[in-house]
Amino acid sequence: MRTITVGFLGCGNIGCGVWKLLNEFGEDIRHRAEVRFDIKRILVRDIHKKRDETVPEALLTTDPAAITDDPAIEMVLEFMGGEEPATQYMLRALEMGKTVVTANKMALALNWHLLQAAAEKHRSGLYYEAAVCGAIPVIRTTIDSLQSNRIEAMMGIVNGTTNYILTRMSQEGSAYADVLKEAQRLGLAEPDPTSDVEGFDAAYKLSILSSLAFHARVPFDVIYRQGISQVNAADIAYGKELGYTMKLLAIAKRQGNVIDARVHPTFIPNDHPLASVNGSFNAIFLHGHACDDMMLFGRGAGSAPTASAVVSDMLYAASRETPRHPTFHNENALAPGLRVTDDWHCSFYIRLSASDRPGVMAHITACLGNEGISIRNLVQRDAVASRAQIVLITHDAGERSLRQALSAIDSPDVRVESMIRVEGK
Amino acid sequence: MRTITVGFLGCGNIGCGVWKLLNEFGEDIRHRAEVRFDIKRILVRDIHKKRDETVPEALLTTDPAAITDDPAIEMVLEFMGGEEPATQYMLRALEMGKTVVTANKMALALNWHLLQAAAEKHRSGLYYEAAVCGAIPVIRTTIDSLQSNRIEAMMGIVNGTTNYILTRMSQEGSAYADVLKEAQRLGLAEPDPTSDVEGFDAAYKLSILSSLAFHARVPFDVIYRQGISQVNAADIAYGKELGYTMKLLAIAKRQGNVIDARVHPTFIPNDHPLASVNGSFNAIFLHGHACDDMMLFGRGAGSAPTASAVVSDMLYAASRETPRHPTFHNENALAPGLRVTDDWHCSFYIRLSASDRPGVMAHITACLGNEGISIRNLVQRDAVASRAQIVLITHDAGERSLRQALSAIDSPDVRVESMIRVEGK
Repeated sequence: MRTITVGFLGCGNIGCGVWKLLNEFGEDIRHRAEVRFDIKRILVRDIHKKRDETVPEALLTTDPAAITDDPAIEMVLEFMGGEEPATQYMLRALEMGKTVVTANKMALALNWHLLQAAAEKHRSGLYYEAAVCGAIPVIRTTIDSLQSNRIEAMMGIVNGTTNYILTRMSQEGSAYADVLKEAQRLGLAEPDPTSDVEGFDAAYKLSILSSLAFHARVPFDVIYRQGISQVNAADIAYGKELGYTMKLLAIAKRQGNVIDARVHPTFIPNDHPLASVNGSFNAIFLHGHACDDMMLFGRGAGSAPTASAVVSDMLYAASRETPRHPTFHNENALAPGLRVTDDWHCSFYIRLSASDRPGVMAHITACLGNEGISIRNLVQRDAVASRAQIVLITHDAGERSLRQALSAIDSPDVRVESMIRVEGK
Repeated sequence: MRTITVGFLGCGNIGCGVWKLLNEFGEDIRHRAEVRFDIKRILVRDIHKKRDETVPEALLTTDPAAITDDPAIEMVLEFMGGEEPATQYMLRALEMGKTVVTANKMALALNWHLLQAAAEKHRSGLYYEAAVCGAIPVIRTTIDSLQSNRIEAMMGIVNGTTNYILTRMSQEGSAYADVLKEAQRLGLAEPDPTSDVEGFDAAYKLSILSSLAFHARVPFDVIYRQGISQVNAADIAYGKELGYTMKLLAIAKRQGNVIDARVHPTFIPNDHPLASVNGSFNAIFLHGHACDDMMLFGRGAGSAPTASAVVSDMLYAASRETPRHPTFHNENALAPGLRVTDDWHCSFYIRLSASDRPGVMAHITACLGNEGISIRNLVQRDAVASRAQIVLITHDAGERSLRQALSAIDSPDVRVESMIRVEGK
């Protein structure tokens, strides 16, 4: 039986979840893995704060060096969140030769190259299953199960808050602001919801996942990002009628050396496996050249599911004699041979309001035709405030051509009310 | 760059898929994993047979010892299928200290204890991701990502042939025999379909998966097994009306030291994630005490998806200095403390045909009531051939009580036409 000494950086929701899992399930873990974890020290901001779990006060410290610099601690778990000081503390622990397990997507997405360089230089382990999609083994699957695949596309519901909001808007026809308020009341959205609803959280996760999937770093700042705060209940309802469900998707595709990576509200067909991922669940759908379609579904957040991923990393680290790191074709900047495009191809849902005049439809179809865009579905609705509602879905088209066409369409007679990308066919 | 020498046992559909993947994708694999695989020898039955891939004849042999006994071969891939001689060949390779990667669920399910004992004794690696659900990383997830969970239940669609048949029966209202014939014509069902349609294939996979999930061997022969050959299109249609989809599920649950493990046609609610797993796709849905609900979905068979799993095992094996094996609380027989029950609890769908006489409904409800079974839904349909069709769904009940009640109900006036278990609420 090996004993591994452990320090926590942070003891909030996730830290308490890990404490609880290691204590309540320690006997089983010892039997299964022949290893026991001995928690030596826990960094907190306030030693006297009330916590969910009864953590002995003697373990608590406010000094990070008592963990990162103590040679008696072999493994450091980081649950602080945010870019700093978490990154500095992790770098220090890695330099000291310690294994680092982190649940921090932001610090990892922004500083992965630094963290991995430190880990490689000092032969330290760096693990981050819990940083992306909670309990769902997306990192391990990408690293250990899909290495023999050219992953061509991945699309994920990677943020539970926005999926909860869109699910309720879709099921109840409610407005965004009302559902957000309700989600905040229930603790499912933060008091400042920006990181979730504007897609930052999803983009951090997409940066990590797509980098692993493509074996090429996709930096956070090249990811196109559009959140759900402008989503209109009318579009959800029209989409539903046409057989589509709206999700905030994190999408990455690679064709040869061209990558596109983006987070935006997306319509997917109702029979797509992602369409029935409801509430706060997460899921990653991907396509590899050998494995074909695959989806991983589960709890992307929460104390116990995140603890499940953290402890699985601890056990995985414990089972390896030497740490292993993913190889990339480039550093934090894109490699010379790789290119990120903002001219991806997909279908588009467009809603227009138009004066009830002859020639309007001819104008719309001419503008689309000029850009080589053809129409798959078109529905004209009863006028609202004397303006006809026109909803159309295009065949595959380039983002730039579509934007050109919309600029040309927009005129006193025709207003472009919304444009939503359609994926999954 | 390490080179690992490899021998194939068998070169049919899966063997050719692995040959192709290693050849076409070898450069990427070398870059990613810093390892190259050198295929030294391939065991075949007939050297001159035409194959999908152009395999150099010089590599082919009909002598298994040229692979299992050659010290120049480090890794043996087994693609023969069937219990023997595959098990003997794998045992020999393990005794010779070679790493074995197998796609053979039958040999593994029936002789795992022998194979693992040989692997442990000779410090050889034994890997079998490809034996269960093709490309879907169910083995790796159970071993490497869910070790910190008490897995309480798993339900899987683990056989593509039967899922294809049930999907078409459900979508088209067709009869079993017609869809089976069509599936055979398309190559989706074997000329002798017994192993698939009677649930043997699913039970082999469930034996492997549930043993890993429960850290306790669940031998094949304790698994209750009922196939789909008796499934009636009328029941699928009635179920649909009531909001249920029929799937052949492999189910294993554990409560304390009581396990139930079974393969049978099952109704699940239409909004359950497994309900939309259609055609030949596979999926495993599970619940762990920390990770909560999780589902893995993908291609469970086929040359390329299975090759994806085989090559991922080869790379996984190559990345480890010493092999690691799962620990079980028991050997191939059930441990003294563990008990397999045939008295599981679930809801039941029951279809009865009854003479149109007073007192019939009172008889039915009395028989159920006597066993403490209450009714959740009841629908009486127009009479067919002067007998009323009664469809009911019970609340949770024990299998034994239900069977008692059905015996009591069955009478000249009331015939029990079908009973289908309902899960997933």
